Amino acid sequence: MRVGWIGTGLMGEPMARRLLAAGHRLAVYNRTPSRTRKLVAAGAGAAGSVAEAVAGNEVVVTMVALPADVEQVFLGPGGVLAHAAPGSVVVDCSTSSPELARRLAEQGAERDVAVLDAPVSGGPAGAEAGTLSIMAGGDAEAYARVRPLLAAVAATVVHHGPPGSGQLAKLVNQTLVAGATLAVCEAYALAHRVGLDPELVRESTRVGVAGSPLFDFLWTRLAAGDLEPGFKLDHFIKDLALVREAAGESPLPGVGLVTELAERARAGRGGGRGTQALVTAIMERAR
Amino acid sequence: MRVGWIGTGLMGEPMARRLLAAGHRLAVYNRTPSRTRKLVAAGAGAAGSVAEAVAGNEVVVTMVALPADVEQVFLGPGGVLAHAAPGSVVVDCSTSSPELARRLAEQGAERDVAVLDAPVSGGPAGAEAGTLSIMAGGDAEAYARVRPLLAAVAATVVHHGPPGSGQLAKLVNQTLVAGATLAVCEAYALAHRVGLDPELVRESTRVGVAGSPLFDFLWTRLAAGDLEPGFKLDHFIKDLALVREAAGESPLPGVGLVTELAERARAGRGGGRGTQALVTAIMERAR
Repeated sequence: MRVGWIGTGLMGEPMARRLLAAGHRLAVYNRTPSRTRKLVAAGAGAAGSVAEAVAGNEVVVTMVALPADVEQVFLGPGGVLAHAAPGSVVVDCSTSSPELARRLAEQGAERDVAVLDAPVSGGPAGAEAGTLSIMAGGDAEAYARVRPLLAAVAATVVHHGPPGSGQLAKLVNQTLVAGATLAVCEAYALAHRVGLDPELVRESTRVGVAGSPLFDFLWTRLAAGDLEPGFKLDHFIKDLALVREAAGESPLPGVGLVTELAERARAGRGGGRGTQALVTAIMERAR
Repeated sequence: MRVGWIGTGLMGEPMARRLLAAGHRLAVYNRTPSRTRKLVAAGAGAAGSVAEAVAGNEVVVTMVALPADVEQVFLGPGGVLAHAAPGSVVVDCSTSSPELARRLAEQGAERDVAVLDAPVSGGPAGAEAGTLSIMAGGDAEAYARVRPLLAAVAATVVHHGPPGSGQLAKLVNQTLVAGATLAVCEAYALAHRVGLDPELVRESTRVGVAGSPLFDFLWTRLAAGDLEPGFKLDHFIKDLALVREAAGESPLPGVGLVTELAERARAGRGGGRGTQALVTAIMERAR
Protein backbone atom coordinates (compact mmCIF):
# COMPACT_ATOMS: atom_id res chain seq x y z
CA MET A 1 0.00 0.00 0.00
CA ARG A 2 0.96 3.65 -0.37
CA VAL A 3 1.16 5.01 3.15
CA GLY A 4 1.72 8.51 4.51
CA TRP A 5 3.49 8.37 7.88
CA ILE A 6 3.52 11.32 10.26
CA GLY A 7 5.64 11.18 13.40
CA THR A 8 8.96 9.31 13.42
CA GLY A 9 9.99 9.48 17.09
CA LEU A 10 10.95 6.70 19.49
CA MET A 11 7.83 4.69 18.58
CA GLY A 12 7.01 5.95 15.09
CA GLU A 13 10.38 5.22 13.54
CA PRO A 14 10.61 1.49 14.33
CA MET A 15 6.92 1.01 13.47
CA ALA A 16 7.39 2.71 10.09
CA ARG A 17 10.51 0.63 9.48
CA ARG A 18 8.48 -2.56 9.87
CA LEU A 19 6.00 -1.35 7.23
CA LEU A 20 8.85 -0.62 4.84
CA ALA A 21 10.25 -4.09 5.48
CA ALA A 22 6.81 -5.57 4.72
CA GLY A 23 6.98 -3.98 1.25
CA HIS A 24 4.76 -0.92 1.69
CA ARG A 25 5.65 2.42 0.07
CA LEU A 26 6.00 5.18 2.66
CA ALA A 27 6.12 8.99 2.55
CA VAL A 28 7.42 10.08 5.98
CA TYR A 29 7.10 13.41 7.73
CA ASN A 30 8.37 14.69 11.06
CA ARG A 31 8.24 18.15 12.63
CA THR A 32 12.02 17.83 13.05
CA PRO A 33 13.02 16.76 9.51
CA SER A 34 16.34 15.19 10.55
CA ARG A 35 14.38 12.50 12.39
CA THR A 36 13.20 10.99 9.09
CA ARG A 37 16.76 10.50 7.81
CA LYS A 38 17.14 6.83 8.76
CA LEU A 39 13.79 5.89 7.24
CA VAL A 40 14.61 7.74 4.03
CA ALA A 41 17.94 5.87 3.90
CA ALA A 42 15.89 2.65 4.28
CA GLY A 43 13.78 3.52 1.23
CA ALA A 44 11.00 5.83 2.44
CA GLY A 45 10.16 9.02 0.56
CA ALA A 46 10.69 12.29 2.45
CA ALA A 47 7.62 14.54 2.75
CA GLY A 48 8.24 18.24 3.40
CA SER A 49 4.88 18.84 5.06
CA VAL A 50 1.86 17.06 6.51
CA ALA A 51 -0.01 17.91 3.30
CA GLU A 52 2.69 16.26 1.21
CA ALA A 53 2.74 13.12 3.42
CA VAL A 54 -1.03 12.79 3.12
CA ALA A 55 -1.65 13.67 -0.53
CA GLY A 56 -2.67 10.77 -2.75
CA ASN A 57 -2.14 8.02 -0.15
CA GLU A 58 -4.75 5.34 0.59
CA VAL A 59 -3.68 5.15 4.21
CA VAL A 60 -2.14 7.70 6.57
CA VAL A 61 -0.68 6.81 9.98
CA THR A 62 0.01 9.38 12.69
CA MET A 63 2.16 8.74 15.76
CA VAL A 64 2.77 11.85 17.85
CA ALA A 65 3.29 12.53 21.56
CA LEU A 66 0.37 14.50 22.98
CA PRO A 67 -3.35 15.04 22.38
CA ALA A 68 -2.50 18.68 21.53
CA ASP A 69 -0.14 17.41 18.81
CA VAL A 70 -2.85 15.10 17.47
CA GLU A 71 -5.28 18.00 17.33
CA GLN A 72 -2.80 20.20 15.50
CA VAL A 73 -1.72 17.53 12.99
CA PHE A 74 -5.34 16.67 12.14
CA LEU A 75 -7.16 19.98 12.41
CA GLY A 76 -4.48 22.65 12.12
CA PRO A 77 -3.94 24.65 8.92
CA GLY A 78 -2.38 22.32 6.39
CA GLY A 79 -3.52 19.40 8.56
CA VAL A 80 -4.40 15.80 7.75
CA LEU A 81 -8.15 16.24 7.34
CA ALA A 82 -7.75 19.18 4.95
CA HIS A 83 -5.62 17.08 2.60
CA ALA A 84 -6.59 13.41 2.98
CA ALA A 85 -8.06 11.87 -0.18
CA PRO A 86 -11.77 11.01 -0.04
CA GLY A 87 -12.08 7.26 0.58
CA SER A 88 -8.77 7.09 2.43
CA VAL A 89 -8.22 5.79 5.99
CA VAL A 90 -6.27 7.71 8.64
CA VAL A 91 -5.00 5.71 11.61
CA ASP A 92 -3.97 7.65 14.73
CA CYS A 93 -1.61 5.47 16.77
CA SER A 94 -0.92 8.18 19.37
CA THR A 95 -2.22 7.67 22.92
CA SER A 96 -4.79 10.44 23.11
CA SER A 97 -8.21 11.37 24.38
CA PRO A 98 -11.23 9.18 23.52
CA GLU A 99 -13.32 12.32 23.13
CA LEU A 100 -10.85 13.79 20.61
CA ALA A 101 -10.83 10.45 18.75
CA ARG A 102 -14.63 10.64 18.41
CA ARG A 103 -14.41 14.23 17.20
CA LEU A 104 -11.79 13.39 14.56
CA ALA A 105 -13.85 10.43 13.33
CA GLU A 106 -16.89 12.69 12.94
CA GLN A 107 -15.04 15.44 11.13
CA GLY A 108 -13.29 12.86 8.93
CA ALA A 109 -16.63 11.28 8.00
CA GLU A 110 -17.87 14.65 6.74
CA ARG A 111 -15.02 14.53 4.17
CA ASP A 112 -15.43 10.78 3.42
CA VAL A 113 -12.20 10.06 5.33
CA ALA A 114 -12.31 7.25 7.92
CA VAL A 115 -10.33 8.13 11.04
CA LEU A 116 -9.45 5.20 13.32
CA ASP A 117 -7.96 5.47 16.80
CA ALA A 118 -5.33 2.74 17.23
CA PRO A 119 -3.00 3.40 20.18
CA VAL A 120 -0.29 0.87 20.85
CA SER A 121 1.19 -0.79 23.92
CA GLY A 122 4.65 -2.29 24.22
CA GLY A 123 7.08 0.62 24.04
CA PRO A 124 10.07 1.16 21.74
CA ALA A 125 11.40 -2.36 22.45
CA GLY A 126 8.05 -3.86 21.36
CA ALA A 127 8.05 -1.66 18.27
CA GLU A 128 11.54 -2.90 17.28
CA ALA A 129 10.58 -6.51 17.89
CA GLY A 130 7.12 -6.30 16.29
CA THR A 131 5.47 -7.49 19.52
CA LEU A 132 3.24 -4.44 20.04
CA SER A 133 -0.44 -4.68 20.90
CA ILE A 134 -2.73 -2.34 18.94
CA MET A 135 -6.11 -1.35 20.39
CA ALA A 136 -8.32 -0.04 17.61
CA GLY A 137 -11.61 1.84 17.52
CA GLY A 138 -13.70 3.17 14.65
CA ASP A 139 -15.54 2.16 11.51
CA ALA A 140 -15.41 -1.64 11.11
CA GLU A 141 -15.10 -1.60 7.33
CA ALA A 142 -12.16 0.83 7.39
CA TYR A 143 -10.58 -1.28 10.14
CA ALA A 144 -10.84 -4.40 7.98
CA ARG A 145 -9.02 -2.58 5.16
CA VAL A 146 -6.03 -1.53 7.29
CA ARG A 147 -5.83 -4.59 9.55
CA PRO A 148 -3.16 -6.34 7.43
CA LEU A 149 -1.05 -3.19 7.65
CA LEU A 150 -1.43 -3.01 11.44
CA ALA A 151 -0.61 -6.71 11.68
CA ALA A 152 2.74 -5.97 10.01
CA VAL A 153 3.55 -3.64 12.93
CA ALA A 154 2.07 -5.51 15.92
CA ALA A 155 1.66 -9.07 17.19
CA THR A 156 -1.82 -8.41 18.59
CA VAL A 157 -4.45 -6.24 16.89
CA VAL A 158 -7.92 -5.97 18.45
CA HIS A 159 -10.91 -3.93 17.27
CA HIS A 160 -12.70 -2.71 20.39
CA GLY A 161 -15.68 -0.96 18.78
CA PRO A 162 -16.75 2.54 17.73
CA PRO A 163 -14.49 5.63 17.53
CA GLY A 164 -12.73 6.29 20.83
CA SER A 165 -12.91 2.69 22.05
CA GLY A 166 -9.29 2.02 21.06
CA GLN A 167 -8.22 4.95 23.23
CA LEU A 168 -10.45 3.72 26.05
CA ALA A 169 -8.87 0.25 25.88
CA LYS A 170 -5.42 1.85 25.98
CA LEU A 171 -6.45 3.81 29.08
CA VAL A 172 -7.58 0.56 30.72
CA ASN A 173 -4.14 -0.83 29.85
CA GLN A 174 -2.47 2.26 31.35
CA THR A 175 -4.55 1.83 34.52
CA LEU A 176 -3.11 -1.68 34.81
CA VAL A 177 0.40 -0.33 34.12
CA ALA A 178 -0.05 2.40 36.76
CA GLY A 179 -1.00 -0.05 39.52
CA ALA A 180 1.66 -2.53 38.43
CA THR A 181 4.31 0.23 38.51
CA LEU A 182 3.24 1.16 42.05
CA ALA A 183 3.39 -2.54 42.99
CA VAL A 184 6.95 -3.01 41.71
CA CYS A 185 8.21 0.23 43.29
CA GLU A 186 6.64 -0.54 46.69
CA ALA A 187 7.94 -4.10 46.65
CA TYR A 188 11.39 -2.74 45.84
CA ALA A 189 11.16 -0.12 48.60
CA LEU A 190 10.28 -2.85 51.13
CA ALA A 191 13.07 -5.18 49.96
CA HIS A 192 15.51 -2.29 50.27
CA ARG A 193 14.21 -1.31 53.71
CA VAL A 194 14.55 -4.81 55.17
CA GLY A 195 17.93 -5.40 53.55
CA LEU A 196 17.17 -8.23 51.12
CA ASP A 197 19.42 -8.86 48.10
CA PRO A 198 17.36 -7.48 45.19
CA GLU A 199 18.75 -10.01 42.71
CA LEU A 200 17.66 -12.96 44.89
CA VAL A 201 14.22 -11.39 45.35
CA ARG A 202 13.94 -10.94 41.59
CA GLU A 203 14.71 -14.62 41.12
CA SER A 204 12.06 -15.88 43.55
CA THR A 205 9.39 -13.27 42.74
CA ARG A 206 9.44 -13.06 38.94
CA VAL A 207 8.09 -16.62 38.69
CA GLY A 208 5.20 -15.78 41.04
CA VAL A 209 1.63 -14.88 40.02
CA ALA A 210 2.41 -11.15 39.76
CA GLY A 211 5.54 -11.55 37.65
CA SER A 212 5.37 -9.57 34.38
CA PRO A 213 7.66 -8.03 31.75
CA LEU A 214 7.13 -4.72 33.59
CA PHE A 215 8.36 -6.26 36.86
CA ASP A 216 11.55 -7.52 35.19
CA PHE A 217 12.16 -4.22 33.43
CA LEU A 218 11.60 -1.88 36.39
CA TRP A 219 13.14 -4.11 39.08
CA THR A 220 16.37 -4.61 37.14
CA ARG A 221 16.76 -0.85 36.71
CA LEU A 222 15.87 -0.12 40.36
CA ALA A 223 18.43 -2.67 41.53
CA ALA A 224 21.05 -0.93 39.36
CA GLY A 225 20.04 2.52 40.68
CA ASP A 226 19.16 3.42 37.08
CA LEU A 227 16.31 5.95 36.76
CA GLU A 228 16.64 6.52 33.00
CA PRO A 229 13.44 5.96 30.98
CA GLY A 230 11.95 3.33 29.70
CA PHE A 231 8.67 5.11 30.01
CA LYS A 232 9.03 8.80 30.92
CA LEU A 233 7.29 10.23 33.99
CA ASP A 234 6.01 13.10 31.81
CA HIS A 235 4.21 10.71 29.43
CA PHE A 236 2.98 8.59 32.35
CA ILE A 237 1.46 11.66 34.02
CA LYS A 238 -0.20 12.64 30.73
CA ASP A 239 -1.72 9.16 30.43
CA LEU A 240 -2.90 9.22 34.06
CA ALA A 241 -4.70 12.52 33.36
CA LEU A 242 -6.49 10.87 30.42
CA VAL A 243 -7.45 7.94 32.68
CA ARG A 244 -8.87 10.28 35.31
CA GLU A 245 -10.82 12.12 32.61
CA ALA A 246 -12.24 8.83 31.26
CA ALA A 247 -13.18 7.65 34.77
CA GLY A 248 -15.09 10.90 35.28
CA GLU A 249 -17.37 10.70 38.30
CA SER A 250 -15.96 7.28 39.24
CA PRO A 251 -12.45 8.20 40.38
CA LEU A 252 -10.02 5.31 40.76
CA PRO A 253 -8.23 5.55 44.12
CA GLY A 254 -5.07 3.74 42.97
CA VAL A 255 -4.72 5.97 39.90
CA GLY A 256 -5.16 8.97 42.21
CA LEU A 257 -2.36 7.75 44.48
CA VAL A 258 -0.03 6.94 41.58
CA THR A 259 -0.67 10.42 40.10
CA GLU A 260 0.25 12.02 43.41
CA LEU A 261 3.44 9.97 43.71
CA ALA A 262 4.43 10.51 40.06
CA GLU A 263 3.97 14.27 40.39
CA ARG A 264 6.05 14.29 43.56
CA ALA A 265 8.79 12.23 41.85
CA ARG A 266 8.75 14.67 38.91
CA ALA A 267 8.93 17.69 41.21
CA GLY A 268 12.07 16.20 42.71
CA ARG A 269 14.19 15.87 39.59
CA GLY A 270 12.09 16.36 36.49
CA GLY A 271 9.81 14.33 34.25
CA GLY A 272 12.49 13.01 31.92
CA ARG A 273 13.29 10.13 34.26
CA GLY A 274 11.59 6.76 33.99
CA THR A 275 8.47 5.68 35.87
CA GLN A 276 10.65 3.63 38.27
CA ALA A 277 11.51 7.03 39.84
CA LEU A 278 8.17 6.61 41.64
CA VAL A 279 10.29 4.77 44.21
CA THR A 280 11.85 8.08 45.27
CA ALA A 281 8.43 9.47 46.21
CA ILE A 282 7.51 6.25 48.05
CA MET A 283 10.71 6.26 50.09
CA GLU A 284 10.49 9.99 50.75
CA ARG A 285 6.87 9.74 51.89
CA ALA A 286 7.90 6.84 54.07
CA ARG A 287 10.34 9.01 56.05
CA MET B 1 14.01 -39.14 53.54
CA ARG B 2 11.73 -39.70 56.52
CA VAL B 3 9.57 -36.61 56.77
CA GLY B 4 7.00 -35.50 59.33
CA TRP B 5 4.33 -33.32 57.67
CA ILE B 6 2.05 -31.06 59.70
CA GLY B 7 -0.81 -29.26 57.97
CA THR B 8 -2.62 -30.86 55.03
CA GLY B 9 -4.95 -28.08 53.87
CA LEU B 10 -5.37 -26.53 50.41
CA MET B 11 -1.61 -26.02 50.06
CA GLY B 12 -0.17 -28.66 52.36
CA GLU B 13 -1.94 -31.63 50.81
CA PRO B 14 -0.74 -31.22 47.21
CA MET B 15 2.77 -30.32 48.42
CA ALA B 16 2.94 -33.45 50.60
CA ARG B 17 1.63 -35.52 47.71
CA ARG B 18 4.56 -34.41 45.55
CA LEU B 19 7.00 -35.53 48.23
CA LEU B 20 5.33 -38.94 48.39
CA ALA B 21 5.54 -39.19 44.61
CA ALA B 22 9.25 -38.36 44.79
CA GLY B 23 9.76 -41.42 47.01
CA HIS B 24 9.97 -39.86 50.48
CA ARG B 25 8.37 -41.53 53.53
CA LEU B 26 5.81 -39.26 55.19
CA ALA B 27 4.03 -39.21 58.55
CA VAL B 28 1.16 -36.72 58.17
CA TYR B 29 -0.79 -34.85 60.83
CA ASN B 30 -3.68 -32.40 60.63
CA ARG B 31 -5.76 -30.78 63.36
CA THR B 32 -8.80 -32.15 61.53
CA PRO B 33 -7.75 -35.80 61.08
CA SER B 34 -10.09 -36.50 58.14
CA ARG B 35 -8.00 -34.10 56.05
CA THR B 36 -5.10 -36.56 55.97
CA ARG B 37 -7.22 -39.34 54.51
CA LYS B 38 -6.23 -38.88 50.85
CA LEU B 39 -2.53 -38.74 51.69
CA VAL B 40 -2.78 -41.87 53.81
CA ALA B 41 -4.54 -43.61 50.92
CA ALA B 42 -1.60 -42.50 48.74
CA GLY B 43 0.89 -44.18 51.09
CA ALA B 44 1.60 -41.72 53.93
CA GLY B 45 1.55 -42.84 57.54
CA ALA B 46 -1.09 -41.22 59.76
CA ALA B 47 0.22 -39.44 62.87
CA GLY B 48 -2.20 -38.95 65.77
CA SER B 49 -0.44 -35.90 67.16
CA VAL B 50 2.23 -33.31 66.39
CA ALA B 51 4.60 -35.27 68.64
CA GLU B 52 3.99 -38.46 66.67
CA ALA B 53 4.53 -36.68 63.32
CA VAL B 54 7.80 -35.23 64.54
CA ALA B 55 9.32 -38.14 66.47
CA GLY B 56 12.32 -39.79 64.83
CA ASN B 57 12.12 -37.87 61.54
CA GLU B 58 15.16 -36.16 59.97
CA VAL B 59 12.98 -33.45 58.49
CA VAL B 60 9.67 -31.93 59.58
CA VAL B 61 7.58 -29.63 57.37
CA THR B 62 4.80 -27.40 58.71
CA MET B 63 2.19 -25.71 56.54
CA VAL B 64 -0.53 -23.97 58.56
CA ALA B 65 -2.71 -20.88 58.04
CA LEU B 66 -1.82 -18.17 60.55
CA PRO B 67 1.15 -16.96 62.60
CA ALA B 68 -0.85 -17.92 65.72
CA ASP B 69 -1.11 -21.49 64.36
CA VAL B 70 2.65 -21.54 63.70
CA GLU B 71 3.30 -20.41 67.24
CA GLN B 72 1.04 -23.07 68.70
CA VAL B 73 2.36 -25.91 66.54
CA PHE B 74 5.98 -25.05 67.39
CA LEU B 75 5.81 -23.80 70.95
CA GLY B 76 2.55 -25.16 72.37
CA PRO B 77 2.45 -28.13 74.75
CA GLY B 78 3.28 -31.22 72.72
CA GLY B 79 4.66 -28.93 70.01
CA VAL B 80 7.34 -29.43 67.35
CA LEU B 81 10.29 -28.04 69.28
CA ALA B 82 9.58 -30.18 72.33
CA HIS B 83 9.72 -33.37 70.23
CA ALA B 84 12.02 -32.77 67.28
CA ALA B 85 15.12 -34.96 67.26
CA PRO B 86 18.44 -33.19 67.88
CA GLY B 87 20.16 -32.70 64.53
CA SER B 88 16.86 -32.58 62.61
CA VAL B 89 15.65 -29.76 60.36
CA VAL B 90 12.19 -28.21 60.65
CA VAL B 91 10.91 -26.24 57.64
CA ASP B 92 8.00 -23.86 58.18
CA CYS B 93 6.31 -23.24 54.83
CA SER B 94 3.51 -21.11 56.32
CA THR B 95 3.42 -17.39 55.49
CA SER B 96 4.12 -15.91 58.88
CA SER B 97 5.95 -13.15 60.72
CA PRO B 98 9.70 -12.65 60.13
CA GLU B 99 10.09 -11.87 63.83
CA LEU B 100 8.42 -15.15 64.81
CA ALA B 101 10.66 -17.00 62.31
CA ARG B 102 13.74 -15.53 64.02
CA ARG B 103 12.40 -16.52 67.44
CA LEU B 104 11.70 -20.12 66.34
CA ALA B 105 15.19 -20.41 64.80
CA GLU B 106 16.74 -19.24 68.09
CA GLN B 107 14.70 -21.56 70.26
CA GLY B 108 15.34 -24.45 67.86
CA ALA B 109 19.09 -23.82 67.97
CA GLU B 110 19.02 -24.19 71.75
CA ARG B 111 17.79 -27.76 71.19
CA ASP B 112 20.12 -28.45 68.21
CA VAL B 113 17.13 -28.28 65.85
CA ALA B 114 17.51 -26.08 62.74
CA VAL B 115 14.30 -24.19 61.98
CA LEU B 116 14.04 -22.72 58.46
CA ASP B 117 11.37 -20.30 57.26
CA ALA B 118 10.34 -21.27 53.72
CA PRO B 119 7.04 -19.69 52.67
CA VAL B 120 5.76 -20.47 49.21
CA SER B 121 4.13 -18.52 46.40
CA GLY B 122 1.94 -19.92 43.67
CA GLY B 123 -1.28 -21.05 45.34
CA PRO B 124 -3.02 -24.42 45.26
CA ALA B 125 -2.75 -24.58 41.45
CA GLY B 126 1.02 -24.10 41.66
CA ALA B 127 1.23 -26.72 44.40
CA GLU B 128 -0.62 -29.26 42.21
CA ALA B 129 1.55 -28.45 39.20
CA GLY B 130 4.83 -28.28 41.12
CA THR B 131 5.46 -24.73 39.89
CA LEU B 132 5.66 -23.08 43.33
CA SER B 133 8.38 -20.65 44.32
CA ILE B 134 9.92 -21.22 47.78
CA MET B 135 11.61 -18.33 49.59
CA ALA B 136 13.86 -19.71 52.30
CA GLY B 137 15.66 -18.18 55.25
CA GLY B 138 17.85 -19.70 57.96
CA ASP B 139 21.02 -21.68 58.55
CA ALA B 140 22.80 -22.30 55.23
CA GLU B 141 24.00 -25.80 56.08
CA ALA B 142 20.52 -26.96 57.11
CA TYR B 143 19.13 -25.36 53.94
CA ALA B 144 21.61 -27.30 51.81
CA ARG B 145 20.43 -30.56 53.42
CA VAL B 146 16.71 -29.99 52.67
CA ARG B 147 17.08 -28.23 49.32
CA PRO B 148 16.54 -31.43 47.25
CA LEU B 149 13.35 -32.04 49.21
CA LEU B 150 12.10 -28.48 48.56
CA ALA B 151 13.03 -28.85 44.89
CA ALA B 152 10.65 -31.82 44.68
CA VAL B 153 7.82 -29.49 45.72
CA ALA B 154 8.68 -26.25 43.86
CA ALA B 155 10.14 -25.14 40.54
CA THR B 156 12.08 -22.25 42.11
CA VAL B 157 13.85 -22.45 45.49
CA VAL B 158 15.92 -19.46 46.67
CA HIS B 159 17.83 -19.02 49.93
CA HIS B 160 17.50 -15.36 50.92
CA GLY B 161 19.72 -15.35 54.01
CA PRO B 162 19.41 -15.61 57.80
CA PRO B 163 16.27 -16.67 59.73
CA GLY B 164 13.25 -14.50 58.81
CA SER B 165 14.57 -13.53 55.37
CA GLY B 166 12.37 -16.10 53.63
CA GLN B 167 9.33 -14.51 55.30
CA LEU B 168 10.58 -11.04 54.35
CA ALA B 169 10.97 -12.12 50.71
CA LYS B 170 7.43 -13.52 50.79
CA LEU B 171 6.18 -10.19 52.14
CA VAL B 172 7.93 -8.39 49.27
CA ASN B 173 6.14 -10.80 46.94
CA GLN B 174 2.82 -10.06 48.67
CA THR B 175 3.46 -6.33 48.29
CA LEU B 176 3.80 -6.92 44.55
CA VAL B 177 0.63 -9.06 44.57
CA ALA B 178 -1.26 -6.36 46.51
CA GLY B 179 -0.45 -3.60 44.00
CA ALA B 180 -1.05 -5.92 41.06
CA THR B 181 -4.46 -6.91 42.46
CA LEU B 182 -5.38 -3.22 42.82
CA ALA B 183 -4.17 -2.66 39.24
CA VAL B 184 -6.34 -5.43 37.78
CA CYS B 185 -9.44 -4.43 39.76
CA GLU B 186 -9.13 -0.73 38.85
CA ALA B 187 -8.53 -1.56 35.19
CA TYR B 188 -11.62 -3.77 35.26
CA ALA B 189 -13.69 -1.07 37.00
CA LEU B 190 -12.70 1.42 34.27
CA ALA B 191 -13.43 -1.01 31.42
CA HIS B 192 -16.83 -1.70 32.97
CA ARG B 193 -17.56 2.00 33.48
CA VAL B 194 -16.80 2.97 29.87
CA GLY B 195 -18.63 -0.05 28.43
CA LEU B 196 -15.78 -2.00 26.84
CA ASP B 197 -16.13 -5.74 26.16
CA PRO B 198 -14.00 -7.33 28.91
CA GLU B 199 -12.99 -10.28 26.75
CA LEU B 200 -11.62 -8.00 24.00
CA VAL B 201 -9.75 -5.95 26.60
CA ARG B 202 -8.29 -9.13 28.05
CA GLU B 203 -7.05 -10.10 24.59
CA SER B 204 -5.29 -6.79 23.89
CA THR B 205 -4.01 -6.17 27.45
CA ARG B 206 -2.69 -9.56 28.57
CA VAL B 207 0.11 -9.35 25.99
CA GLY B 208 1.14 -5.91 27.29
CA VAL B 209 3.99 -5.15 29.71
CA ALA B 210 1.76 -5.53 32.78
CA GLY B 211 0.23 -8.85 31.75
CA SER B 212 0.73 -11.59 34.38
CA PRO B 213 -0.80 -14.88 35.53
CA LEU B 214 -2.59 -12.83 38.22
CA PHE B 215 -4.13 -10.56 35.55
CA ASP B 216 -5.47 -13.56 33.62
CA PHE B 217 -6.80 -15.23 36.76
CA LEU B 218 -8.54 -12.21 38.32
CA TRP B 219 -9.80 -10.65 35.07
CA THR B 220 -11.42 -13.86 33.85
CA ARG B 221 -13.28 -14.21 37.16
CA LEU B 222 -14.31 -10.54 37.23
CA ALA B 223 -15.65 -10.80 33.69
CA ALA B 224 -17.71 -13.82 34.77
CA GLY B 225 -18.98 -12.02 37.89
CA ASP B 226 -17.29 -14.76 39.93
CA LEU B 227 -16.03 -13.60 43.36
CA GLU B 228 -15.11 -17.08 44.69
CA PRO B 229 -11.52 -17.43 45.92
CA GLY B 230 -8.62 -18.06 44.49
CA PHE B 231 -6.93 -16.18 47.26
CA LYS B 232 -9.26 -15.34 50.16
CA LEU B 233 -9.67 -11.74 51.33
CA ASP B 234 -9.11 -12.95 54.91
CA HIS B 235 -5.67 -14.37 54.09
CA PHE B 236 -4.83 -11.33 51.94
CA ILE B 237 -5.65 -8.98 54.84
CA LYS B 238 -3.50 -11.12 57.18
CA ASP B 239 -0.57 -10.87 54.74
CA LEU B 240 -1.06 -7.10 54.34
CA ALA B 241 -0.84 -6.72 58.14
CA LEU B 242 2.48 -8.61 58.10
CA VAL B 243 3.71 -6.32 55.29
CA ARG B 244 2.77 -3.21 57.26
CA GLU B 245 4.53 -4.61 60.31
CA ALA B 246 7.69 -5.33 58.29
CA ALA B 247 7.63 -1.85 56.71
CA GLY B 248 7.48 -0.35 60.20
CA GLU B 249 8.22 3.36 60.16
CA SER B 250 8.31 3.37 56.34
CA PRO B 251 4.63 2.83 55.52
CA LEU B 252 3.87 1.91 51.92
CA PRO B 253 1.04 4.09 50.60
CA GLY B 254 -0.23 1.52 48.08
CA VAL B 255 -0.36 -1.24 50.68
CA GLY B 256 -2.25 1.17 52.94
CA LEU B 257 -4.82 1.85 50.22
CA VAL B 258 -5.21 -1.83 49.33
CA THR B 259 -5.72 -2.67 53.02
CA GLU B 260 -8.44 -0.06 53.29
CA LEU B 261 -10.20 -1.36 50.15
CA ALA B 262 -9.83 -5.02 51.17
CA GLU B 263 -11.32 -4.32 54.59
CA ARG B 264 -14.20 -2.45 53.02
CA ALA B 265 -14.81 -5.32 50.57
CA ARG B 266 -14.77 -7.78 53.47
CA ALA B 267 -17.16 -5.65 55.51
CA GLY B 268 -19.59 -5.84 52.60
CA ARG B 269 -19.95 -9.59 52.27
CA GLY B 270 -17.28 -11.37 54.30
CA GLY B 271 -13.68 -12.44 53.92
CA GLY B 272 -14.35 -15.80 52.31
CA ARG B 273 -14.57 -14.24 48.87
CA GLY B 274 -11.55 -13.89 46.58
CA THR B 275 -9.28 -10.84 46.36
CA GLN B 276 -11.00 -9.81 43.11
CA ALA B 277 -13.86 -8.63 45.40
CA LEU B 278 -11.67 -5.54 45.86
CA VAL B 279 -13.52 -4.31 42.77
CA THR B 280 -16.69 -3.91 44.84
CA ALA B 281 -14.93 -1.43 47.18
CA ILE B 282 -13.44 0.45 44.19
CA MET B 283 -16.80 0.80 42.46
CA GLU B 284 -18.57 1.69 45.71
CA ARG B 285 -16.00 4.34 46.56
CA ALA B 286 -16.35 5.65 43.04
CA ARG B 287 -20.05 6.42 43.51
